[in-house]
Amino acid sequence: MSKTPRTRLSSVARREELIRVGLQLFTGRPFDEVSMEDVAKAAGVSAGLVYHYFGSRRAFAMEVVQHKSLMLFELTEPDPGASVVEQLFTSLEKYIDFAETHRDGYLDVHRGPNSTVPEVRAINAAALLAHENRMLGTLRAEAGEPTEQQRLAVHGAMICVQELCLNWLEDPKIDKAELRDLCAQSFLAVLAAADWEASGPDGEPG
Amino acid sequence: MSKTPRTRLSSVARREELIRVGLQLFTGRPFDEVSMEDVAKAAGVSAGLVYHYFGSRRAFAMEVVQHKSLMLFELTEPDPGASVVEQLFTSLEKYIDFAETHRDGYLDVHRGPNSTVPEVRAINAAALLAHENRMLGTLRAEAGEPTEQQRLAVHGAMICVQELCLNWLEDPKIDKAELRDLCAQSFLAVLAAADWEASGPDGEPG
Repeated sequence: MSKTPRTRLSSVARREELIRVGLQLFTGRPFDEVSMEDVAKAAGVSAGLVYHYFGSRRAFAMEVVQHKSLMLFELTEPDPGASVVEQLFTSLEKYIDFAETHRDGYLDVHRGPNSTVPEVRAINAAALLAHENRMLGTLRAEAGEPTEQQRLAVHGAMICVQELCLNWLEDPKIDKAELRDLCAQSFLAVLAAADWEASGPDGEPG
Repeated sequence: MSKTPRTRLSSVARREELIRVGLQLFTGRPFDEVSMEDVAKAAGVSAGLVYHYFGSRRAFAMEVVQHKSLMLFELTEPDPGASVVEQLFTSLEKYIDFAETHRDGYLDVHRGPNSTVPEVRAINAAALLAHENRMLGTLRAEAGEPTEQQRLAVHGAMICVQELCLNWLEDPKIDKAELRDLCAQSFLAVLAAADWEASGPDGEPG
């Protein structure tokens, strides 16, 4: 008989539980510093079980990164009832809150040693594309099919916002509301530079 | 007696000659594909001499990347007699021309396998900072000491422009003049979003 009581979970629930544990452990340090034994211990299971579910330490870390990336995408889902400008401010606020809460992990996948791992780069690129496509969908509904300049501008604006968040996390010299406003205004300014005026809460250009 | 005539050069001239050869060879392919023997052959010297001057293949490649980075910085030196907006358009035009001429090398150090080499990342970061500081100097002369928001905005605008260039090089869907205009307008728009109006040729806001 095992001395540590172990809850029996379905394999789906066990997987989710391990990813949840991985998220907690990875927040605050690069995933190279977290061993499968750490994960197993925190989840109250054997390291063998973690390997059984994820195959390898790297594959497990990638599932956690992917999971975080999806969390951020879902969290920033805009309210289709709001104006484009309102959607942008709200999404950015949630985005920055998330980046701040998961500061070390966010910096790690974008700037740290893990940022050069090919799978992490692929996850980041796919996430950026998903955010861009969602934004293009919102803008398309309002202003029609984007030109190539406008597509490029949305991409450039996204990268600009991401960079501002990264720099702020590394060295927060302005407060969070100022960062959000700077990000939103920069975003709208770049779109406007490509002749794309987003409407404000009153339906007028924001 | 050697069968291949070899020009005697001073060590400074020889170093410059080897870097020039390196630049030619690296343009068009990742530097991992260029061997010291290729460099030696192209320069008409022995591989041993190349090692003698640069120590290692990696150190040589880094000198070439650093050299390119400085070339780009010097090439885009703005004309202090022109307005900020004129300086920006002219510098961007030169920047984009350079990126286009050195397309494969430029993409490689920013996106390709070599972009994850720590020394390359350090060179890129230092170059970005140098461009930013030069731009901040220009703006400071015109509009006084920048706020933290304005500093961040200049950084975000630089990253945005670099990203637009990279995307355009990968997939040029608009023409070069359109890219330059989009970059310049995005740049100015981000600065304006941080309450920084650059003056145009007539001294009025651009």
